[in-house]
Amino acid sequence: MTKKPTLHDVAKAAGVSIATVSNVLNKKEKELSEQTRRKVLEAIQRLGYSPNQHARGLKKGKTNLIGFIIPDQNPFFMEILKGIHETCAEYDWQVIVACSEENEVRQNELVDIFISQQVSGIILVPVTSTLAGKDKWSNFPIVLLDREIEDSPFPSVSATNIEGCCQATERLAMNGHQRIGIILASPDISTTVQRRKGYEQALHAHGLRIEPDLITYGGEYGGTQSQINGGYRSTMHLLNLPQPATAIIAINHLLMLGALKAMKEMKVRVPDDVAFIGFDDHPWSEINTPQLTVVSQPAYDMGRQSIHILRALDEDKTARSIKLPMKLIIRESCGTATMM
Amino acid sequence: MTKKPTLHDVAKAAGVSIATVSNVLNKKEKELSEQTRRKVLEAIQRLGYSPNQHARGLKKGKTNLIGFIIPDQNPFFMEILKGIHETCAEYDWQVIVACSEENEVRQNELVDIFISQQVSGIILVPVTSTLAGKDKWSNFPIVLLDREIEDSPFPSVSATNIEGCCQATERLAMNGHQRIGIILASPDISTTVQRRKGYEQALHAHGLRIEPDLITYGGEYGGTQSQINGGYRSTMHLLNLPQPATAIIAINHLLMLGALKAMKEMKVRVPDDVAFIGFDDHPWSEINTPQLTVVSQPAYDMGRQSIHILRALDEDKTARSIKLPMKLIIRESCGTATMM
Repeated sequence: MTKKPTLHDVAKAAGVSIATVSNVLNKKEKELSEQTRRKVLEAIQRLGYSPNQHARGLKKGKTNLIGFIIPDQNPFFMEILKGIHETCAEYDWQVIVACSEENEVRQNELVDIFISQQVSGIILVPVTSTLAGKDKWSNFPIVLLDREIEDSPFPSVSATNIEGCCQATERLAMNGHQRIGIILASPDISTTVQRRKGYEQALHAHGLRIEPDLITYGGEYGGTQSQINGGYRSTMHLLNLPQPATAIIAINHLLMLGALKAMKEMKVRVPDDVAFIGFDDHPWSEINTPQLTVVSQPAYDMGRQSIHILRALDEDKTARSIKLPMKLIIRESCGTATMM
Repeated sequence: MTKKPTLHDVAKAAGVSIATVSNVLNKKEKELSEQTRRKVLEAIQRLGYSPNQHARGLKKGKTNLIGFIIPDQNPFFMEILKGIHETCAEYDWQVIVACSEENEVRQNELVDIFISQQVSGIILVPVTSTLAGKDKWSNFPIVLLDREIEDSPFPSVSATNIEGCCQATERLAMNGHQRIGIILASPDISTTVQRRKGYEQALHAHGLRIEPDLITYGGEYGGTQSQINGGYRSTMHLLNLPQPATAIIAINHLLMLGALKAMKEMKVRVPDDVAFIGFDDHPWSEINTPQLTVVSQPAYDMGRQSIHILRALDEDKTARSIKLPMKLIIRESCGTATMM
């Protein structure tokens, strides 16, 4: 129970808008009539209002809010959000989240809205590898998360996508697979491009040919449900080729859901008929039969680091981009070498 | 790409704060100096700024934002969010989400913050059955979602919790189970109280005794991870009783995850050793072996209806509370009558 008077209470007591109270606190009195200014100050004193929790932000005409723009409701972003939440709590920042559903127009609107709402910083998972508003927003504290963009004026927090996907592919190659299919997300985001590169590097290292038929895009249209459907369709394609894939990698959790659904329906036995590696660890990885081999992303730490960077920017320090390591967690679904 | 000038651009051009521009648009000129007002109006004209997308809200000194406060990152709330998103798009509203992690102080702060941010309405999943700020906030458009509170001044959108849990329990009783364990969430939320009531009604109807040992609370401490752990602990308890449960109901998705993890570790065969019914449908329900019988909540529709109510409140119409039906989806995990 918070009994402390809020900005809202002060505005009500003074008979003015919250915006006006905020102007007084921000020392923008020039913009106000003297009478209004006095009414607000009087109400602040009478109610004993202290702008403590909003203090740091308000000095700069900002709130103590951080805006986080996610592209879809992948549990990966929920795990990142956990890291963001816990780190924000240390700084007395609050987080508000909005979802672009991989729509560029909507994403740009959301950035503008967060800026109008005077958030202290934005964590953005961009929906394309370019970012139309990057010049317009370049003076605003923005951290790119997960995905990188071309010629970025913003620091980013991402993961070792090339290495992560390379390791997964190598594991399947070492287990004797020669027809390894991959289900990629949207072709226009950096994580897809990098993971494909890792896949091709591994095939090359093991003397395997790159077969266009085995490279599928299940996340072309973005969005939560559409990616689940895409993972399903790609799996059907890979398993119905004249020479079907004997192993499949799905490069995110939603694509993985679709792939598992398709294999269940087709009564494909994993790993006996088809070996499988997914992305993102989750309680379901161990509940599932067989238990899932996955490339685990450093989601929680990515969330934490993005706040540390915003904190540095807030203190007018410079901040560098960071890349955190992925880790292959080997369980049952990828099979073993002796099985072949 | 949005090329339209924003509130932010106007503020920059006029050399004033966004709050001041908002005051001018809200016709709160009395609070401003004449010079400031003129500067803002001039900038609006020069840039060709049109407060179109923000128009409805701004008339009332509000934005076109809706705040949604969730208690944890249960996929159930993500499904609700989908309904909210799609309905908001019809009204040109945007949604921002914040998470209370079942913490009452944090919840109250978030409500205050959303009000200070001038959102057009709030959708709140309250963390207790009382709501300390309810009188303070009673003039603000708030819809309670999923959970109800005592003496509420706010309309709510909830589901038929008693009936849903009663149906699940009856199904297990009809299959011959006499020791049906239940894993409940926080004791202080209406959904827990109502689902327990449905469970007890069904036992009563089938002439079964209510055994305190079989009623567990896995969600006492709230929060995402803590509920997964609670579901795990409760399951261990129910299966290690001198007379173990032969059937288990877990009343939300997170508790269900913990229960499935525990049964997997204990090598319990579902439904042969223990029959199981979870809550909330999800792609994993069909991927899992065995496929999961669940009480499916009308999450998407709950999201939609909550926006329709906010819309009515925005148009100064009265709005009634709504209760939507749950549905038992029978798959493999609950077993069949012939098996006993």
